[in-house]
Amino acid sequence: MTGSEIDRVIELLAKLPGLGRRSARRAALHLIERKAVLLLPLADALATAAERVRRCSICGNLDTVEPCGLCADPRRDRSTLCVVEEVADLWALDRSGNYRGLYHVLGGTLSALDGVGPEDLNIARLVERARADDCREVILATSATVDGQTTAHYIVDRLADLAVTVTRLAHGVPVGGELDYLDDGTLIAALNARRPV
Amino acid sequence: MTGSEIDRVIELLAKLPGLGRRSARRAALHLIERKAVLLLPLADALATAAERVRRCSICGNLDTVEPCGLCADPRRDRSTLCVVEEVADLWALDRSGNYRGLYHVLGGTLSALDGVGPEDLNIARLVERARADDCREVILATSATVDGQTTAHYIVDRLADLAVTVTRLAHGVPVGGELDYLDDGTLIAALNARRPV
Repeated sequence: MTGSEIDRVIELLAKLPGLGRRSARRAALHLIERKAVLLLPLADALATAAERVRRCSICGNLDTVEPCGLCADPRRDRSTLCVVEEVADLWALDRSGNYRGLYHVLGGTLSALDGVGPEDLNIARLVERARADDCREVILATSATVDGQTTAHYIVDRLADLAVTVTRLAHGVPVGGELDYLDDGTLIAALNARRPV
Repeated sequence: MTGSEIDRVIELLAKLPGLGRRSARRAALHLIERKAVLLLPLADALATAAERVRRCSICGNLDTVEPCGLCADPRRDRSTLCVVEEVADLWALDRSGNYRGLYHVLGGTLSALDGVGPEDLNIARLVERARADDCREVILATSATVDGQTTAHYIVDRLADLAVTVTRLAHGVPVGGELDYLDDGTLIAALNARRPV
């Protein structure tokens, strides 16, 4: 029906999260019909990213420089490490704009089911960084899922002997969230962690 | 926060239909974390598509050969032309697998609001094709929207003097559709076009 080149683009786009086969077809057409303003620039940007983007050997972030822009930034507070599961979490926290310390990307969570052990995650490097003289606090920002919390517990154990304070993100009602739509776990956590006004 | 190369990929992905800024970020990360199996192949496929895919000068379809595979296929019935708005519509009809004639892609619909006139669409070429000796039927498969139907009416007028039968797609209840969820217009059309069992 169509050139195999178009089919190939559709097939690859369909592998992106959030794009099914139908939306991949729409996206492919959208691209091909906008060759100069979208298709060529995207092909080019992807090739450039493939060539230049590397994983930071210190924190596990993705960037074109080594160490990454965050690790190299002299304005960041070197006494605090925020531990996240994935680069997407790092981006989300950094977009929120309030945290000025450094990050550490684990690259996933411990998972007995999927056979992910401590050696599969970026944990040894975290212990090393937490042991450094200037590190005073490690903030565990893993997900509030079973695997995320298991991973957090494991890290607490691994850091127990070090002279760092280990903290975790607060649980509670999301800002702007309606109580009616919240799950019981969140409500219980929010009640237990209630604070004087 | 991130390399400008990553930002550039996100910015371009966010222009695809169905991808907002957040899902573009997810898609970009997904790509960068799968460099060998997804990022490089996609960059390559897009570059190849940009280089090879052309609009068929006969029907307006997109393909890597000229004329396109459909127009060149000797097994297709040359007596029937199916007129669609966009290449996506052509693909949808051809996937359904029942129609064996040729297509004609208008490249949009007439729209007074958007300033799209007959000369902006692939209509002159359609009249030319409909005038050819072997053309016996033109099926109007434009959308059942105001603009789609306006365009269909305009084409009916343009083809009035030719020796071709002009038909349009039937309106009615979608197969598998529940009456309860259908709009009044469709129900009225389905009632009016009722057929003996």
